Amino acid sequence: MSEITRIETTDIADLARGAAILGTGGGGDPYIGQLMALEALRISGPVELVATENLPDDAQILPVAMMGAPTVMVEKLPSVDQFVVAVNALGQYLGVKPTHIACMEAGGVNSTIPIVAAAELGLPLLDGDFMGRAFPELQMVTATLFGIPTTPMSITDDKGNAGIFNTVSNLWAEKLARVVTVEMGAASIISLYPMRGNQAREAAVAGTLSLCVRLGRAVKQARASHADPVAAVAEVLGGRVIHTGKVLDVVRRTTAGFARGKATLAGLDRNDGTTLTLNFQNEHIIATRESTVLATAPDLLICLDIDTGEPITTEAMRFGHRIALIAAPCDSRWHTPEGIELVGPRYFGYDMDPVRWNQVQLPQ
Amino acid sequence: MSEITRIETTDIADLARGAAILGTGGGGDPYIGQLMALEALRISGPVELVATENLPDDAQILPVAMMGAPTVMVEKLPSVDQFVVAVNALGQYLGVKPTHIACMEAGGVNSTIPIVAAAELGLPLLDGDFMGRAFPELQMVTATLFGIPTTPMSITDDKGNAGIFNTVSNLWAEKLARVVTVEMGAASIISLYPMRGNQAREAAVAGTLSLCVRLGRAVKQARASHADPVAAVAEVLGGRVIHTGKVLDVVRRTTAGFARGKATLAGLDRNDGTTLTLNFQNEHIIATRESTVLATAPDLLICLDIDTGEPITTEAMRFGHRIALIAAPCDSRWHTPEGIELVGPRYFGYDMDPVRWNQVQLPQ
Repeated sequence: MSEITRIETTDIADLARGAAILGTGGGGDPYIGQLMALEALRISGPVELVATENLPDDAQILPVAMMGAPTVMVEKLPSVDQFVVAVNALGQYLGVKPTHIACMEAGGVNSTIPIVAAAELGLPLLDGDFMGRAFPELQMVTATLFGIPTTPMSITDDKGNAGIFNTVSNLWAEKLARVVTVEMGAASIISLYPMRGNQAREAAVAGTLSLCVRLGRAVKQARASHADPVAAVAEVLGGRVIHTGKVLDVVRRTTAGFARGKATLAGLDRNDGTTLTLNFQNEHIIATRESTVLATAPDLLICLDIDTGEPITTEAMRFGHRIALIAAPCDSRWHTPEGIELVGPRYFGYDMDPVRWNQVQLPQ
Repeated sequence: MSEITRIETTDIADLARGAAILGTGGGGDPYIGQLMALEALRISGPVELVATENLPDDAQILPVAMMGAPTVMVEKLPSVDQFVVAVNALGQYLGVKPTHIACMEAGGVNSTIPIVAAAELGLPLLDGDFMGRAFPELQMVTATLFGIPTTPMSITDDKGNAGIFNTVSNLWAEKLARVVTVEMGAASIISLYPMRGNQAREAAVAGTLSLCVRLGRAVKQARASHADPVAAVAEVLGGRVIHTGKVLDVVRRTTAGFARGKATLAGLDRNDGTTLTLNFQNEHIIATRESTVLATAPDLLICLDIDTGEPITTEAMRFGHRIALIAAPCDSRWHTPEGIELVGPRYFGYDMDPVRWNQVQLPQ
């Protein structure tokens, strides 16, 4: 699946843009992730990208991620050292030396932080992740569907505090790490889901870092050739534009380590006064036009600038922003009953079945 | 200092009563601690008590305690196994075998839980603690004054979740362990302040488990000989009765893992309508009659049943209860500037200097 076998400085801008697209509104400011990854590659050289199918059974993979509210990450840049500290804390606790670093999430800074860690540690990086997009909670990964435990996990902050958790379920790992993250200042660096190569081959969503680069390039190339960058993204993801509109209002609140809220978009191409509502918890969860739900998690809801195709995070969304909303299919395993229980609308507090990206017939 | 060299089932009732007296209103229901310790000694036999001055330099001491709101402990009895799990989790993390168990606190269940752990593990117990009374937060120990770090520490719950923390300060250990304790259901079992014999010899408040037994016996013997049990407790502690009165009102709220509140007592021996107010945060912190502060933490404020001399915890205090309030001196190291910063009234949010147990002249 991998079309690229290593990540170089020249890939980072495309990769960060693509990661922000898969971030579906969450995942933090892509510019911050881009800066950190560029700096790490300049110092340590390119990072080798390993296709999941090429992982040896006994590979020892230690994923690394940032936990917390993306709205906080914008103001509080993590230090490069902290990623290494989190990985080493888990490795030392387990008594293992990692052979590979991995992303748990394909989205926002959690696609670029592992690049920084891999560069610093001189280790290869898995071309894949365990969501195929971004989700707000630790247990919301394909690894959970395959019975891979979140813990032992490490959790660290910028002051030098560190912890290790062993929990009875992946949901308990989320609960305990969440309150510690909030106390640490609403952002922490974690290393979690330590796993072997055979486990990652089975559970990973393959090729998502390559996909990030492809998505970023598609936007760049469409703009260069005066084509439609929004259509280019929809094509790469196999999705469709379900709304174009101007942002009327965004209500945000940062609670319990999440950025929750609601965005209201007018209809650009319609003069009937109808509006579209996007509910988010770090990521966009539900898109509703009037009383019709157009699409929901676990499928992807992606906001792009209608002219440039640049992804727009929920914290960057402002009144007057002209937005194209893309709905696109998620990894098929999220549509199993176990997947829907983990990341479907009901988990987020919406009493409805999931609506797929192409399920509702749109008016012409 | 030790007058007893081992704890047997026949000591437990006295010890638990004495621990509830030093609990100064906090520390949880003494009856629960008594039941657990009795059961452990019945199964495993007596626990050897080691005077702090007899500790060898290279003794490896692992203290164990319950963290959380005493009001919750009444409803949620911890399992005996959990104490062993907490100690072993820390021992395994450190790669050491403990030679001694210790109490961090002389007060309530935190004087009896270490007995259970010592009995189960077949280890001797330190005759001493690191408060000389009860205090509500982890960093409030003489160990902090001697630069002994709280961490590495373990934290466990009744469901099987466990964590290890390494923090940059003892206050950060309190902060992170507190939010985890709240998330675990407002109670956790922790093992913390791992230390060597030479450190414990210097930092411990010596002989406080013996003191608990002596206090409990003094109450029992005074009752048996129809003497005044309240006066007997005041004498053993070198303190004095500063108020006797009937409880008019108790306001409690369990917030952030603490039982906070205020009790108002009428004056039994006075007909002038004056009342006494006791402010508590797990333990009694400030005693005020009208506008005069009679005594404050770090000195001890102890509520006893006026007739029986039984200690009364804040959660057991009810309207109509007839109470004698004893003020007694704390370990002298708490009255150093560093001690007052850690456990003086200002830390608890009262803008005043500490008032010592015998500082205010009482009206005849």
